[in-house]
Amino acid sequence: MEEDKDKFSEWYLRILEDAELIDSRYPIKGMIIYRRWGLFIIRQMQQYLEKLLEDAGHEPTLFPVLIPDNVLGKETEHIAGFEEQVFWVTHAGANELERKLALRPTSETAMYETFRLWIRSHQDLPLKIHQSCTVYRYETKHTRPLIRGREFLWNEGHSAHIDDEDARKNIEEIKEIYGKLINEMLCLPFMVNRRPEWDRFPGATDTFAFDTIMPNGKTLQIATAHNLGQNFSKVFGITYEDEKGEHKHVYQTSYGPSFGRLLAALISVHGDEKGLVLPPEVAPIQCIIVPIFFKDADKERIQKYADKVRKKLDELGIRNDIDYSDDRPGNKFYHWEMKGVPLRIEAGPRDLEKNELTIVRRDTGKKSQIKFDRLCEIPKIFDEITENLRAVAKKKFNERLIKVKSIDEMKKSSGRGILSLGWCGKDECSEKIEKHVDILSVDDGKGKCIVCGKSGKSINSANTY
Amino acid sequence: MEEDKDKFSEWYLRILEDAELIDSRYPIKGMIIYRRWGLFIIRQMQQYLEKLLEDAGHEPTLFPVLIPDNVLGKETEHIAGFEEQVFWVTHAGANELERKLALRPTSETAMYETFRLWIRSHQDLPLKIHQSCTVYRYETKHTRPLIRGREFLWNEGHSAHIDDEDARKNIEEIKEIYGKLINEMLCLPFMVNRRPEWDRFPGATDTFAFDTIMPNGKTLQIATAHNLGQNFSKVFGITYEDEKGEHKHVYQTSYGPSFGRLLAALISVHGDEKGLVLPPEVAPIQCIIVPIFFKDADKERIQKYADKVRKKLDELGIRNDIDYSDDRPGNKFYHWEMKGVPLRIEAGPRDLEKNELTIVRRDTGKKSQIKFDRLCEIPKIFDEITENLRAVAKKKFNERLIKVKSIDEMKKSSGRGILSLGWCGKDECSEKIEKHVDILSVDDGKGKCIVCGKSGKSINSANTY
Repeated sequence: MEEDKDKFSEWYLRILEDAELIDSRYPIKGMIIYRRWGLFIIRQMQQYLEKLLEDAGHEPTLFPVLIPDNVLGKETEHIAGFEEQVFWVTHAGANELERKLALRPTSETAMYETFRLWIRSHQDLPLKIHQSCTVYRYETKHTRPLIRGREFLWNEGHSAHIDDEDARKNIEEIKEIYGKLINEMLCLPFMVNRRPEWDRFPGATDTFAFDTIMPNGKTLQIATAHNLGQNFSKVFGITYEDEKGEHKHVYQTSYGPSFGRLLAALISVHGDEKGLVLPPEVAPIQCIIVPIFFKDADKERIQKYADKVRKKLDELGIRNDIDYSDDRPGNKFYHWEMKGVPLRIEAGPRDLEKNELTIVRRDTGKKSQIKFDRLCEIPKIFDEITENLRAVAKKKFNERLIKVKSIDEMKKSSGRGILSLGWCGKDECSEKIEKHVDILSVDDGKGKCIVCGKSGKSINSANTY
Repeated sequence: MEEDKDKFSEWYLRILEDAELIDSRYPIKGMIIYRRWGLFIIRQMQQYLEKLLEDAGHEPTLFPVLIPDNVLGKETEHIAGFEEQVFWVTHAGANELERKLALRPTSETAMYETFRLWIRSHQDLPLKIHQSCTVYRYETKHTRPLIRGREFLWNEGHSAHIDDEDARKNIEEIKEIYGKLINEMLCLPFMVNRRPEWDRFPGATDTFAFDTIMPNGKTLQIATAHNLGQNFSKVFGITYEDEKGEHKHVYQTSYGPSFGRLLAALISVHGDEKGLVLPPEVAPIQCIIVPIFFKDADKERIQKYADKVRKKLDELGIRNDIDYSDDRPGNKFYHWEMKGVPLRIEAGPRDLEKNELTIVRRDTGKKSQIKFDRLCEIPKIFDEITENLRAVAKKKFNERLIKVKSIDEMKKSSGRGILSLGWCGKDECSEKIEKHVDILSVDDGKGKCIVCGKSGKSINSANTY
């Protein structure tokens, strides 16, 4: 995972196939097949996120995948932002449909038609719903599995509020929830960047993006949260009756993480030259047991011992498997390391004699002995692995936060991470900056423009996916 | 739920909306919005089924929703069976696509293109995969929420085997797994009917259907399992190398239950005039706690007591809620009965005094007292509820299995359940039978033809959805 970009891309594509996370040979460009190993991780993320959302009062729902053209087109900025990316269903059987139907690129419009029916009074607010589903965008840029596809898996949340303050409060709640998913569960460092006006979600008054940094120095936007103000409620006629009997338009927010991009970041940030390194919480197999015997005479008692270990792990609720294949132990080690299994348990004649086991951590490669009776300590080891992964990733992330003070420094650092620099606020200067990096956010901090030297604001910038 | 058909239909549509299971006001015919109450039940079924499948070695996967027309059209019988029902994506943005793409009506063709790549040798077999997803069929018949829609939720399984015997074994395994889902989890009685040749899945050599009976006497097909023989493997070129190095075509099966139809059956079979009756395992809320106080002076201590009950239920892993709304207790009872919550716990001053609680079963309406310290017995009560629901449904089902011996008897019983009758095997007689009922299966039993009196086979028939 060196900075050599081609090397990273090669590694990334190879590990997707080798670890059987996905299969990208499906006969439609930008659409992939999720296989067991990748799908399991995504489902773990999804369940974790859904629980956090539902504990905070966001209700699960599921809307149809198709949106009539007149509904999708109601909010003019919104449709302008998506119209080039929409897949259209125009026929059913041999008949042309009366009205063409869009594969949802996102569900604001589909849902807000119904919000009008669901919301009557201030007692119906806040309304907070979410759904895990697939969305469709006809990407014209180069597609990359999990990173930029034409079908992707996400969770999208939508809310309606009495006032702007409550809408903002919801965005803060979402920031906290997504933070837990991204950093606590997946051990990924990230930065929330308030996107500049020209890079907002179509129809939003404000867009916050969750950016992480990939091993090649590019940033990857893994989630967003939008303040929609009253833009949609006015167009869709979503009003509530307040306590005085007055009818008012609701304030809205929408937000979503991409499960595919989170998986891409998880793979890339934690992975190493041996393959995947998975945090225990998302690993399909948390412990792989490898029975080791050199003489056939040992086989039976070693297998018995391995089975006993498996039973113990089952009791502890640890996802595990025994590798009884005919392969040599070395090949087994190599295979399960490549698959990212957090902990390997070797059960050999020596281990059996001492009623212990040899355990090897995937993250550090550290080997140690553990007594059979101490297997209950594995969850604690998992915590250590998780903490270590988070710390190592954070360190790498911090090394890629770079302050630059001149055009030359920017050129030199471009592609190495997130660059913080000063900008006067004028288009002529930002145009020069954007020749080299994309602007992630313009914050309120002060900075001296690296182009003209005038004082202005501080901006974050990077090469982005 | 009397036999009056309109009464049942009315009841069914009303409960869907009243209990907020779904919303059918989405602006595309045959496409509905799943709301929390309905979606939760479906997710419970899905998880239960997925666990059974995965424990039996079926691997989860997820294929794209779109299938290129040339892939969908490869197996001629298959496409002939579906072509009138396919939604076609023809445009993306303003451009016409080079090749039109189908919204999957089912995934045989999408998957089998890839099976060819995944299967090389006999060691890759059996290959058993499954996915939970939405499928799309442009139904021209009258649509009914959850029963017949243009978008529906299901799980579909697909397998490839060395020989016909192993394929048949898989169908038996699936029958057992679906049986657990339908009867053990959902407490629904069912019958497996081997469909007559003319009613098989397009491209199959054999189709087994899981039929249940609705309160209006019509049967509802809730799942199917198909033996595909080598029909698809020959067209898609799916071969394996056997131990002698010979290349052979695999044998295949595919199968799937409809989650929407299972939910429809669950609602209809167990429901009563008060509304839903849910088996505890699928209920979003298993216990609703209703605090009861007549004087404001009691309010605080009763709420404290209710909170203590809630904490205990949480510890026991029982999904619960407390109804603290301002409604009168009677209205609360009515509301949660309508929603089908299996057990109501009333906490009043009298209960508190005796350190007990009043519990009311939704299925029987039986009221009893339980000591606070005995709340740990609730899971046992849940088991009793589940058994009772299963037994009551089974009894009703059995009453609807009717043997008829003449055309007149058939006419009288048509619409009352599954009719078993004799048929000589000739078209001219079955045409007369099918004026009144649909043929579900032709089994090997002997029977005297109810039309011509000649001896022949025994058939199951019914009015079907």
